[in-house]
Amino acid sequence: MRLSRFHLHTTKETPADAELVSHKLMLRAGMIRKLASGLYTWSPLGLRVLRKVEAIVREEMNRAGAVELQLPTIQPKELWEETGRWQKFGGQLLKIKDRKEQEYCYSPTAEEAITDFARQELSSYKQLPVNFYQVQTKFRDEIRPRFGVMRAREFLMKDAYSFHLDDASLVAEYENMKAAYTRIFTRLGLEFRSVQADSGAIGGDASQEFHVIADSGEDALVFSTGSDYAANVEAAIAADPAARAAAAEELRKVETPTQKTCEDVAALMGIALLRTVKSVAVMTTEDEFVLALVRGDHEVNEIKLAKVTGLRDYRMASEAEIADHLGSEPGFLGPLNPRKAIRVVADREVAAMADFVVGANEKGFHIAGVNWGRDLAEPEVADIRNVKAGDRARDGGELKIARGIEVGHVFQLGRQYAQALKATVLDENGKAAVMSMGCYGIGVSRIVAAAIEQNHDDAGIIWPVAMAPWQAVVCMINPKQDAAITAAAESLLAELQAAGVDAVLDDRGLRPGAMFADMELIGIPHRIVVSERGLAAGTFEYRSRTASEAENLDKAAVLQKIAG
Amino acid sequence: MRLSRFHLHTTKETPADAELVSHKLMLRAGMIRKLASGLYTWSPLGLRVLRKVEAIVREEMNRAGAVELQLPTIQPKELWEETGRWQKFGGQLLKIKDRKEQEYCYSPTAEEAITDFARQELSSYKQLPVNFYQVQTKFRDEIRPRFGVMRAREFLMKDAYSFHLDDASLVAEYENMKAAYTRIFTRLGLEFRSVQADSGAIGGDASQEFHVIADSGEDALVFSTGSDYAANVEAAIAADPAARAAAAEELRKVETPTQKTCEDVAALMGIALLRTVKSVAVMTTEDEFVLALVRGDHEVNEIKLAKVTGLRDYRMASEAEIADHLGSEPGFLGPLNPRKAIRVVADREVAAMADFVVGANEKGFHIAGVNWGRDLAEPEVADIRNVKAGDRARDGGELKIARGIEVGHVFQLGRQYAQALKATVLDENGKAAVMSMGCYGIGVSRIVAAAIEQNHDDAGIIWPVAMAPWQAVVCMINPKQDAAITAAAESLLAELQAAGVDAVLDDRGLRPGAMFADMELIGIPHRIVVSERGLAAGTFEYRSRTASEAENLDKAAVLQKIAG
Repeated sequence: MRLSRFHLHTTKETPADAELVSHKLMLRAGMIRKLASGLYTWSPLGLRVLRKVEAIVREEMNRAGAVELQLPTIQPKELWEETGRWQKFGGQLLKIKDRKEQEYCYSPTAEEAITDFARQELSSYKQLPVNFYQVQTKFRDEIRPRFGVMRAREFLMKDAYSFHLDDASLVAEYENMKAAYTRIFTRLGLEFRSVQADSGAIGGDASQEFHVIADSGEDALVFSTGSDYAANVEAAIAADPAARAAAAEELRKVETPTQKTCEDVAALMGIALLRTVKSVAVMTTEDEFVLALVRGDHEVNEIKLAKVTGLRDYRMASEAEIADHLGSEPGFLGPLNPRKAIRVVADREVAAMADFVVGANEKGFHIAGVNWGRDLAEPEVADIRNVKAGDRARDGGELKIARGIEVGHVFQLGRQYAQALKATVLDENGKAAVMSMGCYGIGVSRIVAAAIEQNHDDAGIIWPVAMAPWQAVVCMINPKQDAAITAAAESLLAELQAAGVDAVLDDRGLRPGAMFADMELIGIPHRIVVSERGLAAGTFEYRSRTASEAENLDKAAVLQKIAG
Repeated sequence: MRLSRFHLHTTKETPADAELVSHKLMLRAGMIRKLASGLYTWSPLGLRVLRKVEAIVREEMNRAGAVELQLPTIQPKELWEETGRWQKFGGQLLKIKDRKEQEYCYSPTAEEAITDFARQELSSYKQLPVNFYQVQTKFRDEIRPRFGVMRAREFLMKDAYSFHLDDASLVAEYENMKAAYTRIFTRLGLEFRSVQADSGAIGGDASQEFHVIADSGEDALVFSTGSDYAANVEAAIAADPAARAAAAEELRKVETPTQKTCEDVAALMGIALLRTVKSVAVMTTEDEFVLALVRGDHEVNEIKLAKVTGLRDYRMASEAEIADHLGSEPGFLGPLNPRKAIRVVADREVAAMADFVVGANEKGFHIAGVNWGRDLAEPEVADIRNVKAGDRARDGGELKIARGIEVGHVFQLGRQYAQALKATVLDENGKAAVMSMGCYGIGVSRIVAAAIEQNHDDAGIIWPVAMAPWQAVVCMINPKQDAAITAAAESLLAELQAAGVDAVLDDRGLRPGAMFADMELIGIPHRIVVSERGLAAGTFEYRSRTASEAENLDKAAVLQKIAG
């Protein structure tokens, strides 16, 4: 291919609303153009990258034995009502009425549609297991679309759904998909980690997320130095706390006139923050008042707290509710001396504390020297906190935290969708059996942005070879339109292509500085310059995108560098 | 690939609403499944065919120098209002409100979005010409979706849009695209014709349709035996009529008490139908009453009539308007003796008639012996009729009519969209110039159905090799699980694949009759049977999908038949 016949359009400016480096660089490179909020056009350059990702995803899904199909993007309300998700999915579900006032949605995910397909197509256990996938445009009506294609409303997703007679088969396919995902992200050339995840709104029994590691990542990932344990922060669990020490102090009231946070109380008292306890007041959906306790240096993990019995869909208590139950205003709350009987849920670490400090339920006061069993009944105990970097891991190692961008997710869904949609097959005994399901997603368009977040420098994008719009560019410096230079450049291009390299010729006639800046900005891994001077010396100037210097090489050496 | 690991699911029944043979066969072969009205899932089998069509379209578009991009499917109302099409497009435009009550549509075509992209991306004539294309899901909210994917609401389309500084460049690209389309349909192995077309609602200067020839086609195509002239019936033009004969008869009133049609009047009078004139009363948008005249054996062509000055968006006159202007009821209308002054538009053939018969504008009467210039003023003349099979062509040949399914369309759009959206570039003199545009569509999913309409028999689909889900199937008859038969079948599969043949192994273990019926139904071009008997004789049973008999061949001969 020749760039003179390609539409390449780089720019220097970036709009003010582009915060992430990937968003800025994709706009500057001309990979995407905004049509409307959360809606982007993929330019010819951007689409080349997207298609390379898509091709690798498709190859590995096929290799893993999944079969591709294509569901409609527009799906009827009736089907989504069968699982209750027409209501439950929330505002992200783009609802549509057609000319006959029938209601539909633009598919944000396709569990319903694929299960409908499966209940029509699959009637016998002999047809199982089967894993259907598609690579398709999805739509989620994000309340605040931003970060370019990282959180666009319309995006490209690979979604796969497997069907099984029994859970052993589901687990086997789940492991098969994890292995396929590992091959995909490895082939893409990305630094990634797979972590244990909470299953979230989709539900199910087990799930794992794949993250591209990047400092700008939205998600905190937790690793152990003691094993290959990895989990996202919502799912990560630290080691059990040490046994509780014996009570050594007496209860005493401490004046804390303006000290409302654990940090301020600890500073005033001259004690370590980890000797204080933070009280968080929440209400269950049954209007029960619950005080959740975590150590002063810890944070409540909302996902974990919601898993405690009765606390699903809990909400924060209002100041009136707090005053009613505790007789105090926020900042001085604690489990001692409530106005009404309350439920107390203590984090495992809090339950292991002795001689700790809590709010007095009285404005301007805290209470120190508090001990379980003596001053307070033994609490209900649960793991309700976020782990912290430096925590001890259950494997004996230390927990570390890195940041990641979620690009893939595998779930063991189990039977919830098949049950709701009555998707059964006849088993070996001729009895109807509800199928068990897995689902496996990859954010294809998101991978493009995540790769840039991970791989860039001041000059622009640094593509892994497998994702680059072209692996190599032949830059022709030929101001006098010298036929020998043109011939040498075209011949090198042809040799690279014959060696299986996806190469392009920059024959736009730009001056070298502008040409090189463009190629660095759009992140081409290998650059070879064909110039009059080089031709005279029998060499080409070669530079890797990641090298600081260019080197003069003969053709064989250039081919060796690029095609191996 | 092995069919045991593929999801193939043929059925014997077809739903009652499947009228077209392609719709029935796609359902029986399990290529598609209905999700809702006009919304179809493409099964793994169907998708294989769709992707083969898509790949050929993409290859030829790239070869022709077009560059691929991807626009969002969801597009903002504001953009569609800039061209006025938010209103004008009509009920087929699926309108959508997001959670913020902003309005969008699901793109049924993308002139607005691509012109918006172009006005941002293109600033200089040096960037022209350029042809952007995409292969993308489109949505048209058909009032009566039917015929399976032939007229689905959600469908796959290749749409291309070219941008030019001047019309000469546009015409050159238009010819380039016509040549690309010819290569595409030739490579697909379809019998097709390209015909001159009316530009319809999209507008513009010149357009051509590509049709797959099939008896079930919705469109009538007109060909000449005298040249390669071909047009759809909306655009076809017959030769000029012969010169008008001299008047020979006197005007006379004829009693036609119940004869309201030209056929009945001609039968009563014992004259040829082509001596009568049909009067069609219409109203312009300015409320002008117009009588359109065509010969008794001809039909008014609405598209041609709408092109007559003042008749754009005309409508049929009501009985009250007819009575008001002509003083008669329908069935006896004519241009003589109207009650009020009226405008008369005569088809070219009518203008060339002498001694003809028209309605008398009086119930129960017609008038014979009518002549232009003597009894009536010379009329306004236009070509306003459909051509008929047997008409003389302008090239001296005879016009024939065949039926076709429209699968492609190329337009010279000119400047209407660029003008409305102010898409300008700086020309050689540094002056802003509105770009000229072409647009070029192919109904990718429709081609699949059209190919079946053209190529099928009682047993099922007969795919052209280029579109077949697999080119060849190796059918293994191995009831005793004989290792030698399995090895022979797998070896033959490998040899076919090594020879570049997209082959599949039917290892599902069905009995031969069921296996062969499936392979005929899904239309695999080449079938090779590996059996105990054949293995003993050193042969394979080979049968082409189009042959009536199988033949026993050795391996070399089989490979020769399939891989050439």
